Amino acid sequence: MGAMKRSIYDEDHESFRASVRAFLERSVIPDVEQHAADKALPREFWLEAGKQGFLGLEIPEEYGGAGAGDYRFNAVAAEEFSKVNAALGSCWGIHADITAPYLVELGTEEQKQRWLPGVAAGEILLAIGMTEPSGGSDLAALKTTAVRDGDQWVINGSKTFITNGYSADLVLTAVRTDPEKGARGITLFAIPADAPGFSRGRKLDKVGQDESDTAELFFENVRLGDDHVVGELGGGFIAMMQKLPQERLGCAISNVHHAKQILIETLQYTKDRKAFGQSIGQFQHNKFLLAEMFTSIEVTEAFVDQCVLAHDQGELTPVDAAKAKWWSSQVQNDVLDHCVQLHGGYGFMNEYRVARAWRDARVSKIWAGSNEIMKELIGRDLGL
Amino acid sequence: MGAMKRSIYDEDHESFRASVRAFLERSVIPDVEQHAADKALPREFWLEAGKQGFLGLEIPEEYGGAGAGDYRFNAVAAEEFSKVNAALGSCWGIHADITAPYLVELGTEEQKQRWLPGVAAGEILLAIGMTEPSGGSDLAALKTTAVRDGDQWVINGSKTFITNGYSADLVLTAVRTDPEKGARGITLFAIPADAPGFSRGRKLDKVGQDESDTAELFFENVRLGDDHVVGELGGGFIAMMQKLPQERLGCAISNVHHAKQILIETLQYTKDRKAFGQSIGQFQHNKFLLAEMFTSIEVTEAFVDQCVLAHDQGELTPVDAAKAKWWSSQVQNDVLDHCVQLHGGYGFMNEYRVARAWRDARVSKIWAGSNEIMKELIGRDLGL
Amino acid sequence: MGAMKRSIYDEDHESFRASVRAFLERSVIPDVEQHAADKALPREFWLEAGKQGFLGLEIPEEYGGAGAGDYRFNAVAAEEFSKVNAALGSCWGIHADITAPYLVELGTEEQKQRWLPGVAAGEILLAIGMTEPSGGSDLAALKTTAVRDGDQWVINGSKTFITNGYSADLVLTAVRTDPEKGARGITLFAIPADAPGFSRGRKLDKVGQDESDTAELFFENVRLGDDHVVGELGGGFIAMMQKLPQERLGCAISNVHHAKQILIETLQYTKDRKAFGQSIGQFQHNKFLLAEMFTSIEVTEAFVDQCVLAHDQGELTPVDAAKAKWWSSQVQNDVLDHCVQLHGGYGFMNEYRVARAWRDARVSKIWAGSNEIMKELIGRDLGL
Amino acid sequence: MGAMKRSIYDEDHESFRASVRAFLERSVIPDVEQHAADKALPREFWLEAGKQGFLGLEIPEEYGGAGAGDYRFNAVAAEEFSKVNAALGSCWGIHADITAPYLVELGTEEQKQRWLPGVAAGEILLAIGMTEPSGGSDLAALKTTAVRDGDQWVINGSKTFITNGYSADLVLTAVRTDPEKGARGITLFAIPADAPGFSRGRKLDKVGQDESDTAELFFENVRLGDDHVVGELGGGFIAMMQKLPQERLGCAISNVHHAKQILIETLQYTKDRKAFGQSIGQFQHNKFLLAEMFTSIEVTEAFVDQCVLAHDQGELTPVDAAKAKWWSSQVQNDVLDHCVQLHGGYGFMNEYRVARAWRDARVSKIWAGSNEIMKELIGRDLGL
Repeated sequence: MGAMKRSIYDEDHESFRASVRAFLERSVIPDVEQHAADKALPREFWLEAGKQGFLGLEIPEEYGGAGAGDYRFNAVAAEEFSKVNAALGSCWGIHADITAPYLVELGTEEQKQRWLPGVAAGEILLAIGMTEPSGGSDLAALKTTAVRDGDQWVINGSKTFITNGYSADLVLTAVRTDPEKGARGITLFAIPADAPGFSRGRKLDKVGQDESDTAELFFENVRLGDDHVVGELGGGFIAMMQKLPQERLGCAISNVHHAKQILIETLQYTKDRKAFGQSIGQFQHNKFLLAEMFTSIEVTEAFVDQCVLAHDQGELTPVDAAKAKWWSSQVQNDVLDHCVQLHGGYGFMNEYRVARAWRDARVSKIWAGSNEIMKELIGRDLGL
Repeated sequence: MGAMKRSIYDEDHESFRASVRAFLERSVIPDVEQHAADKALPREFWLEAGKQGFLGLEIPEEYGGAGAGDYRFNAVAAEEFSKVNAALGSCWGIHADITAPYLVELGTEEQKQRWLPGVAAGEILLAIGMTEPSGGSDLAALKTTAVRDGDQWVINGSKTFITNGYSADLVLTAVRTDPEKGARGITLFAIPADAPGFSRGRKLDKVGQDESDTAELFFENVRLGDDHVVGELGGGFIAMMQKLPQERLGCAISNVHHAKQILIETLQYTKDRKAFGQSIGQFQHNKFLLAEMFTSIEVTEAFVDQCVLAHDQGELTPVDAAKAKWWSSQVQNDVLDHCVQLHGGYGFMNEYRVARAWRDARVSKIWAGSNEIMKELIGRDLGL
Repeated sequence: MGAMKRSIYDEDHESFRASVRAFLERSVIPDVEQHAADKALPREFWLEAGKQGFLGLEIPEEYGGAGAGDYRFNAVAAEEFSKVNAALGSCWGIHADITAPYLVELGTEEQKQRWLPGVAAGEILLAIGMTEPSGGSDLAALKTTAVRDGDQWVINGSKTFITNGYSADLVLTAVRTDPEKGARGITLFAIPADAPGFSRGRKLDKVGQDESDTAELFFENVRLGDDHVVGELGGGFIAMMQKLPQERLGCAISNVHHAKQILIETLQYTKDRKAFGQSIGQFQHNKFLLAEMFTSIEVTEAFVDQCVLAHDQGELTPVDAAKAKWWSSQVQNDVLDHCVQLHGGYGFMNEYRVARAWRDARVSKIWAGSNEIMKELIGRDLGL
Repeated sequence: MGAMKRSIYDEDHESFRASVRAFLERSVIPDVEQHAADKALPREFWLEAGKQGFLGLEIPEEYGGAGAGDYRFNAVAAEEFSKVNAALGSCWGIHADITAPYLVELGTEEQKQRWLPGVAAGEILLAIGMTEPSGGSDLAALKTTAVRDGDQWVINGSKTFITNGYSADLVLTAVRTDPEKGARGITLFAIPADAPGFSRGRKLDKVGQDESDTAELFFENVRLGDDHVVGELGGGFIAMMQKLPQERLGCAISNVHHAKQILIETLQYTKDRKAFGQSIGQFQHNKFLLAEMFTSIEVTEAFVDQCVLAHDQGELTPVDAAKAKWWSSQVQNDVLDHCVQLHGGYGFMNEYRVARAWRDARVSKIWAGSNEIMKELIGRDLGL
C-alpha cells in the first residue's frame, strides 16, 4: 500500500513508539477483555505505564517525569494507545496529556512536589471535572461552587461524564468561586478523592468505551485550603481555554489512529471473507468504499500531523485544534460505520473489534466540546 | 405540527392500534429494563400477546388466529411494537409476521393443526434459520445439509444471528437436501427445539437490541421425518424469495416508526434542554436539522405506506420491498445518529432511550439482506 | 423495471397527459434548441398552448378557461412540461399554475373579464414580481412602493429574477402601499407592460434554464388606478402566503419529474455506453448508484404524490409544501449531479441534455423561497 | 482568521508568487470577460506569460526556459492562475505543467531545440491528445492509429475534449502504432497543427470553463516522420502513466485553490449581504456551514501540500496523486455548491464569479481520469 511517508517523526519518536508498542503488547492487549468486563483499567496498568515512563512525558524530570519537551512523544503515545482501543487512549490522555499539564504549568512548587511524582508513577490517577449535569458544553454556566469559610473553601456541586472518575485519586475541578463574575469567577481545585464530602456515583453505563470508568462526582461540603487551588483565583476558565487546544488535538490524534487501525484490519477482513465466490473487498462497491476511506483517513492524518507540528512549536491556534477535533471525529465515525457494514452481521457482534470501535467512537463528536461548539468557535474566528 | 394525514388506515386499524398500545403500556413497557437485562423477552410476554390476538394476525381462525386477511393490521402492530423498542418489533416480527406465514401457506393440514394454535397462543415460539456463519446474505451458498436415511432426514450444520433463537420452540430452517442443485436443492424444515441433536450457543452479545435473544443454532444428526418438511422438497429457496418482500416491508415499517418515535421524543428534549440561555432546539443549526429529519421521516413514511397498501393488495414487488428496506434503514440510522448528537453526553449513556435506539438501529442496514444486496436486486431490476 | 403503480391519477388524467404529450412532441420539442438560443419561449408557444387548453386549467369556463377544478390536471401538465426541460416547466408554471390563480381568486369581476380570457388564450403572458435586488427570500422587507396621488397610485421600485419577465404582458407585483404596517402594508398590483414608466432590464444571463426569459423590472412613476389593485389593499402578503404552497408544490412536481426523466435517459446511456469491455451501468459502483437514485426518486415521488392528493382536497399545509419543495430540489440536484458523472466528459457538454438539466436544476434549491427558508418554516411548525 | 501557516513555500516561492500575481492583475484579470466571450485565451496572453517566464518552469535554460528544478514554482503558478479562474489554471497547466515535460524528458535533442524555445515563449501552444470519443478514461482502448508507410507514419483517428485544442500549435497525441500489443502498442506523436490532414471541430460548448478553448481534433491521413515520434515506439502508455501523477497533482492544486478563493470571497459576501436584519453569515446555519467549508478546504490543502513536497522530492506515488485528485475535486464541488446557495438568486447569475466557478468546477470530477478511475487505482493499490 502506497501511503505517503509521514514526515513529522524522527528516529527518536519511532524508537519511543516501539517501546510503547512493546508495553501494550506485553501488559495491556492480553487484558482488554478483562478491562471491558470490569468497566475500568486496573491500577496495575497505571503503575506499569508509569514505570515505563509513559505517564510523565509532560512532567519535568525533577518531579519524576521524562520532561520530554516535545509534544510529538505525546502524539506517538496517543496514537499507539488508541490503536489498542479508544478507551485506553482516552483514559491515558485524561491523565497524562490533559490533566497533568495543568499541575505542571499552574501548580505551586509545593503542589508539584506533592503530586507530580505520584502522577508520573501512576500512583496518583488524575481526572478533570468540567462538565456538569445541567451544563454540557456551556462551561461558563457551571454551578459547582466554593464558598470561603475562614481559611478554607467549602465546595458543593457535582460533575458528570468524568473519564477516570471512578478510580481517580485527584480530580482537577472547575468551581465557581465568585458568582458575580461569570467566566472570570471560575477557579480550579485539585480535589483528592479521600476528601470528606467527596463521593462518586456508579460507573456510568455508556454506549461504548467499556474499558474506561466514567462517573458522576459529588461534592458535599468538601473543605479544602488554598493549597488545593491550582492557578490563580478566578483564573480557571482562562486556564481551561488555554489547555483545550491540546486536549482537542489529543482527541484528533486518537480519532484518526483509532479509525485507521480498524480500517486496516477491515481491509484484511474484506480480503479474507468470501461471498458469491470472491473476496468481498473485490466487489467494486466495496473496493471504491475502501479507497474512499483510506483517502479520507490519510487526508485527515495530514492535517492532524500538521497540527501536531504546529503545537510542538507552540503555534497551534484554538481554532485549528477545533477544526482538527470536529473533522477527525466525523471522519472516524463515518469510516467505522462503513467498517461495520463491511463485516455484515459480525459487525453487530460485540466480540468483533469493529463493533466495539463503532460504539467507542460515537462520543468523539460530543466530548471535549461538541462538534457544534467547534463550529461555533471556527465561525467566530471567521468574523461571523 | 403539520404532518400530512396518513391515508392508509381506517377506523378499524386505529381501534386495533389502540388495543396494541394498551397492551404495550400495561404489559410490556414496565418491563423493558428487565428484558434488556435478561437479553430476552419472557414467555409471559408471548402468552399475553397471544391472548390479546397479536400473534395470529396471519393465521386463519380455524387454527386459532385472527385471520385478519388485511396486512395493514400487521403494519399497525409492527409500528406500535417498534415504537417501544426495535428489539420488540423484530422479535414479534420474526414470530408473527415473518415465520408464521410460511407455516400457513406451505404447511400441510396436519402441520397447521399441530403448530398454528400454539403459534397464535404464544406457546410455540418461532424463529427462522437462514443465515450461516460462512454465508451472510448469500443464501444460495448454504451448507447445512439434510441427508436421507430410510424414511428420515439427518440434518447437520449450523445457523447464526437467529432472532428468537435462544428461546424458540420451532425453527423454520433452510437446509440443503440436494447438493447438486444449487438454489433448487434447498428445503425448509421445521425443527423442534427438543429434537435430539439440536443445540444452541449462548445468547449473542450484540451491539444493540439487548432485549432480543439472538443465538447460534447447531444441528448434529438431527433426525426428522417428512412431516417436518415445510413446503416442497427443493422449494425452500423459492419460498424464501416469495416471503422476503413481506419480511423486508416489515423491516421498513419498523425502521420508520422506531426512528420517528425517537425523533419526536428528541424534539421534546431539545425544547426542554437549555444551553447558553435558550432551548437547544431553537439554535438555528438544530432547528434546521430537526426540520430535515422530520422531512426525511415523513417522505420515507409516504413511500413505506404506499408499499403497505400495495402489499395489502398483493402487488408489492420484491424490488419495491428492497427499496423500502434499504432506504428506510439508512434514514433510520442517519436520524438516530443526529438524535444522539442533540442529546450531547446523555446520548452516549445507555439509560437514555436515544442511546439504545442508536445501537439497536445499526443492524437494520445489515439484516434481512444487507443494503448492498438490496441495491444489487434493484440494479438487476433496472436491467443492469 | 418494477416501479410501484402510482395511484393518484385516473383515466381522465392519463388521457389529458397524452394530449399534453402530443402537443409537446409536435409543437415544442422540435424547437427547444431555438428556445435556448433565443433565451425565451416564442409567443407562438403560448398561443398554441392556450389553444390546446393548457393555460386555463385554473380559470373558470366563463372566462375562457377549462375550469378543471382538479389540481391533478395541473400536476400532470407540470410533469410533462418539466420532462421536456425545467425552463418549460417553470415558464408554464409561473403563467398558468402560479399567477393566474391570484387573478381568479382575488380579481374583481371586471378584472377577470379584462384579463383572464387573454391569459387562457396565451395572449396575455403573466409574470409575478416578488423578489427584489436587496431582498431575496425576505418578502416582508420589500421596497417597491406605491404612493397615493389623487385617485391613482404612483409606483416606484424594481424587481429581479422575474421568470417570464422579459416577455410578460402583465406582472402581478407585490408593492408596499403602507410603509408603517410591515407585512400588512403590502398590496398586489397587476402592472401592464405597456404602462408608462415600466421598463425591463436585459434578459438575465443565468447558469441554466436558458429557454426561459428572466429579467429585472423597473417601475419609475408608474401610475395605475385602483382597477389594477388585485385583492385587498394591504392584503398582498397574506395572499402570497396562501398561494405559496401551490407554487412550492408545483416546484416539487417539476423537480421530481425533471430529474426522473433525465435519470431514465441516463440509465439507458449507461446500458449503451461501453468501457473496459462492458456496459458502464454494469460496473457495480454504477449499478448501485443507479439503484440508489431510482429509489430516491421514487420515494420522493410518493411523498409529492401524496401532497398533490392533499392539495386537490384543499388540505395541503404550507409546511408540507415546504417539505416537498426543499426535499425534492435536493434530490433533483443530487441525482442530476450523478447523472452528469455517469456521462463522463459528455456530461460537461451543453449539447447533452444531462448537462443542461444539471445547470437548470441548480436554481430549484434557491427560488420560491430558498431551502433555508423552507427549513425555517418547518422548524417553526415544530414549535422551535 | 486563524489558518495554520503553510510550511511548504519559502521566500523565493512567495516572491515568485508576487510576480505571477502582478502579471495576472495587470495583463489577465482585466480581460477575463473577453476570454469568456471569445471562448479562448488570446495569443497575447501566451506571449506575455512566456515573456514573464511562466511557461518554461519545467524547461531547461538552454532551451529558453527557467529550469526551475523545483516543482513548487509550478505549484505556486497553478495556485495563482486557478484563483483567477479554473479555465486559466487548466489552459496554463496543459501547456506548461502537463505537456511540456513530455518534450523535455522524452524529446530528442533535435526536438527540444525545435520546439521548446517556442513553448517557453508562448509561440508554440501545446495540447495533449489522449481521450477519444469512444474511450473516456479507458486509455488502453484507443483507436487512433499510425500505420507505417515507407519512412513515414500515416495517422488516422480523432481525439476529443482537448483543452487548448482549438488554438494549439502542437498536439502531443497518443496513437496506436501496433494493434496487437495493447497498451504496449501506443506511441506518442507531436502533431503540428499545420500538418496536412489535421483539422479541428468547433470549440466545444461546455458547461463551464468558458475561457478555455476545447475542441475535437481529427487526423485524416496525417503523414509524419520519425522526428515527430516523442519517446520510444510503443512507450506512450508507460510515459503517460509516469506523467499522470504530475497532471493529477496539478489538478488537485487547482481544485483546492480555486475553491478556496471563491470561498473567501463568499465569506465576505455573507458579511456584506443583509437579510432579516443581520448579515446572512451570522445566521447559525450559514456560520456552521462556512466553518465546515473552511475546515474541509484547509484539511485538503494540508494533504495536497504534502503531495507537492513529496513530488518535489520525486516521491509522489501515482496512488497518492489519485487520492489528491479525486478528493480535492469532490471538496471543490461541494464547497462551490454551498457558495452558490449562500449567494441566493445571484448564485444562479453568470455575472457572479461564484456561478461561473460552480460551472467550471464540475469537470474536475471527470477529467484527468474520472474519480471512479482514481478509486479503481487506489483500490488496486490496497490489494483489491
